[in-house]
Amino acid sequence: MNILKITGQNFIAGQRLNSGKQVVYSYDASTGEALDYSFYQATTAEIDQAVQAAYVAYPQFRATLPEQRALLLESIANEIDALDEQFIAIVCQETALPKARILGERGRTTGQLRLFAQVLRRGDYLAARIDPALPDRQPMARQDLRQYKIGIGPVAVFGASNFPLAFSTAGGDTTAALAAGCPVVVKAHSGHMLTAEYIANAISTALKKCQMPAAIFSMIYGQGVGEALVKHPFIKAVGFTGSLKGGNALCAMAAARAEPIPVFAEMSSINPMILLPKALENRAAQIATDMCASVVMGCGQFCTNPGLIIGIKSAAFSQFINLLSDQMAQQPAQTMLNRGTLKSYQHGLDALLAHAEISHLAGQTQQGNQAYPQLFKADVNMLLEQDALLQEEVFGPTTIIIEVESAAQLQHALNNLRGQLTASLIAEAQDLTEFANLLPILEEKSGRLLINAYPTGVEVCDAMVHGGPYPATSDARGTSVGSLAIDRFLRPVCYQNYPDQLLPPALQNANPLGIQRLINGVLSTAKL
Amino acid sequence: MNILKITGQNFIAGQRLNSGKQVVYSYDASTGEALDYSFYQATTAEIDQAVQAAYVAYPQFRATLPEQRALLLESIANEIDALDEQFIAIVCQETALPKARILGERGRTTGQLRLFAQVLRRGDYLAARIDPALPDRQPMARQDLRQYKIGIGPVAVFGASNFPLAFSTAGGDTTAALAAGCPVVVKAHSGHMLTAEYIANAISTALKKCQMPAAIFSMIYGQGVGEALVKHPFIKAVGFTGSLKGGNALCAMAAARAEPIPVFAEMSSINPMILLPKALENRAAQIATDMCASVVMGCGQFCTNPGLIIGIKSAAFSQFINLLSDQMAQQPAQTMLNRGTLKSYQHGLDALLAHAEISHLAGQTQQGNQAYPQLFKADVNMLLEQDALLQEEVFGPTTIIIEVESAAQLQHALNNLRGQLTASLIAEAQDLTEFANLLPILEEKSGRLLINAYPTGVEVCDAMVHGGPYPATSDARGTSVGSLAIDRFLRPVCYQNYPDQLLPPALQNANPLGIQRLINGVLSTAKL
Repeated sequence: MNILKITGQNFIAGQRLNSGKQVVYSYDASTGEALDYSFYQATTAEIDQAVQAAYVAYPQFRATLPEQRALLLESIANEIDALDEQFIAIVCQETALPKARILGERGRTTGQLRLFAQVLRRGDYLAARIDPALPDRQPMARQDLRQYKIGIGPVAVFGASNFPLAFSTAGGDTTAALAAGCPVVVKAHSGHMLTAEYIANAISTALKKCQMPAAIFSMIYGQGVGEALVKHPFIKAVGFTGSLKGGNALCAMAAARAEPIPVFAEMSSINPMILLPKALENRAAQIATDMCASVVMGCGQFCTNPGLIIGIKSAAFSQFINLLSDQMAQQPAQTMLNRGTLKSYQHGLDALLAHAEISHLAGQTQQGNQAYPQLFKADVNMLLEQDALLQEEVFGPTTIIIEVESAAQLQHALNNLRGQLTASLIAEAQDLTEFANLLPILEEKSGRLLINAYPTGVEVCDAMVHGGPYPATSDARGTSVGSLAIDRFLRPVCYQNYPDQLLPPALQNANPLGIQRLINGVLSTAKL
Repeated sequence: MNILKITGQNFIAGQRLNSGKQVVYSYDASTGEALDYSFYQATTAEIDQAVQAAYVAYPQFRATLPEQRALLLESIANEIDALDEQFIAIVCQETALPKARILGERGRTTGQLRLFAQVLRRGDYLAARIDPALPDRQPMARQDLRQYKIGIGPVAVFGASNFPLAFSTAGGDTTAALAAGCPVVVKAHSGHMLTAEYIANAISTALKKCQMPAAIFSMIYGQGVGEALVKHPFIKAVGFTGSLKGGNALCAMAAARAEPIPVFAEMSSINPMILLPKALENRAAQIATDMCASVVMGCGQFCTNPGLIIGIKSAAFSQFINLLSDQMAQQPAQTMLNRGTLKSYQHGLDALLAHAEISHLAGQTQQGNQAYPQLFKADVNMLLEQDALLQEEVFGPTTIIIEVESAAQLQHALNNLRGQLTASLIAEAQDLTEFANLLPILEEKSGRLLINAYPTGVEVCDAMVHGGPYPATSDARGTSVGSLAIDRFLRPVCYQNYPDQLLPPALQNANPLGIQRLINGVLSTAKL
């Protein structure tokens, strides 16, 4: 393949640098063999240079018009769409994900960039509010007060292993941060550095075409280089998708800084599926088929992979368990994203297999370098007693069934769940009436609630929430998918008694952006 | 005075309890003498009972209609407005704040409650978004997705010493949390427990009148009882206004929980005032008069008290310094909120007096039980070298002048400021052109920017931001004054494929709340 342009140097504010000697390698995910490309571990000086440059570019970048940033995002999308078959082949090679998935994920990634361009043009993210002066108010005059939201500052983004495009170099966090007017420094995920280099080149090209400052995007390679990034005083927020352990470590680091900063970490969710009696009676076979598909989809490497299935003891539930067991036993092994992921999966399975209250229902003995789908059943007491093993995500194509004795025990069990990205009910209308009390419990526990739907396949749109209470994420008030994700990287600023020409366009009397604003407590697109 | 109803018992979910034997006393702020009323230190069991009850009431409370909560807030406002002269006298006695101030603060507090009632009726805080199903979309159908924001859960609120009404039992944090649908457990500030008891009684009465669950409001008394509150697993967020040390301690506690929770702490700000050359040339005397008034207002006990005045060396700036010195020297001593506050003020002054790079310009020697206004001047190097002493708020009627050598040094000095609640420029039009480069620096450093205005006197309105980067607050993405404060206690939830009748009213097809929603990317009040 003709991939001569791959230098493996760090992307530092428009330069390609390799001051360090240490190199890291990318691997073929299927064979585990090192590829021919080496990447230079970023030095502390390079990281500092990237962040300093991002910080210097920040005032200029946040002052760009929303339209300018919209054009930048669209330009990045165009560059990524223009990448050729070689690129697709490389992503497949680095991640063992099939071509159709990578093509789909590219569409999702560029669609995401274009969605945020729309958000920028709509301008509601600016949250403009104007309380004009009331010079004659008694007992005291009111001065003119105007508020909108600005980018919080340079953001550190950690590429995620499981979405080499949609959650990595130009993924959701980068897109949301750039849209917000925040420069970004990406830590490329070690699992797909070649992919990352292609995307970073695409971003660099778009920056040039749009005449945007090169310093608003940097990307570093290496092991353990994230710490220097998160601890850098000019980094003002962190975006991360990964393990609970990794997310917790970043949060602790960020909280211990001289100036603590917010970390938006999307971490661990077991995405409970609650199967209600009538639905099981009416369509156990269909549920088993759909469930199996959702569990093994993409080798179970989705944050929203169903990890827990709960039903009330009944003949229909037993039938469902048998059907699901049969189907899971027949699922082929799949190659995981990398060796580390497979090893973690194996460790997770070992812990489940070793537990006295957990029985193995289906799945071939783990062997070779692929992941076999596995089905388990756990005693309800593990949930009632908040056993940590049950509540921690095993990343891969596996799920655990829990059989509760009664409706009361079901409620009790759900009350004992930790925070989740999603919670799904499979139910008939009669079930929803009878079990209406479960809805507020699930609402409290998760960011997204589904009825007769499966959580995998996260739509990128305005209404999506890919978030939820801890440990699903580190901050339930945000989402990492969908247009609301921009909010994480914004903060409100108020201007008091400002001359009109010094106000940002969003707040000027003439409303040059033509956006909706809250004026004297009334939403309006009017000029003043 | 007829204050028989004061029992000093804790308000625990509709009951008045005093299981503990330990009592604490309220003091007359002017004499330092203990008043005749004792308050029972809350026991761990009482705190647990309050939080458990709040948690149980939370699903019911967050499901109330916005109109119901609006009526509750208005009812609380009415009860507080109806409190008699005895009440006003008590607040004055406990805080040494003058009657006019307390009457004004009561108006501000009840105005704040009524402003949030308007926010609830407007419904934009719900941030409703609807992406309807697209069953025929290729290559994949889209399911119906709807999003809005719900209350985050029971909130712990710490009463603030300096605003016995507007930032305490029924203050900004409580109001925002109740508006969001979050039950509240208040830790009464030890400096005004009698005041707190009156207000808690008013809230209890309003809850009864509105037939709201008593458990959505509790209030505890005591020293050191806040820790058990913040560490309680059912508390989901914390609101605090106070010292940097106190705020940092709460943040550390919250981050160390099994489930970390957000803390919105408003802490330390020195609110820099930048005096530009032309303004000084044209109106040094007026600036000195206005500045002096802002510094000594309310005995300097405002979060937005100007603590740092910066100007470029010039004859006009020297004249200003002389004028301000003269005026500050003539300001009378005032009684502070309590003995602890006076002691802290004295400690703060001692540290300034002892520092070799700081000179004392005006103010009588501290003596007796009142605070004398003081004026200092510090060497610019202290700012350039980020000396912590200079950057930490001395709570009280004092401020520090810094003289810089040049425009370049001014820019450099401002770049070295920490995060602030406010930053103000006193400037003529010509100054604003010449020093335009300072605006983005100040924007980055603070939550509110003022031109030719003084930061004290915080308007409660939609456009206000009373927040800012650390250490001004623990989370720059929030405000503790103004209607945006509700956002701190909300989190987004997404409903996928939900039957219409199970959706919250905000998201139902018929739009029964009549609110604006983002439908297919377009803001609209339409039905579906």
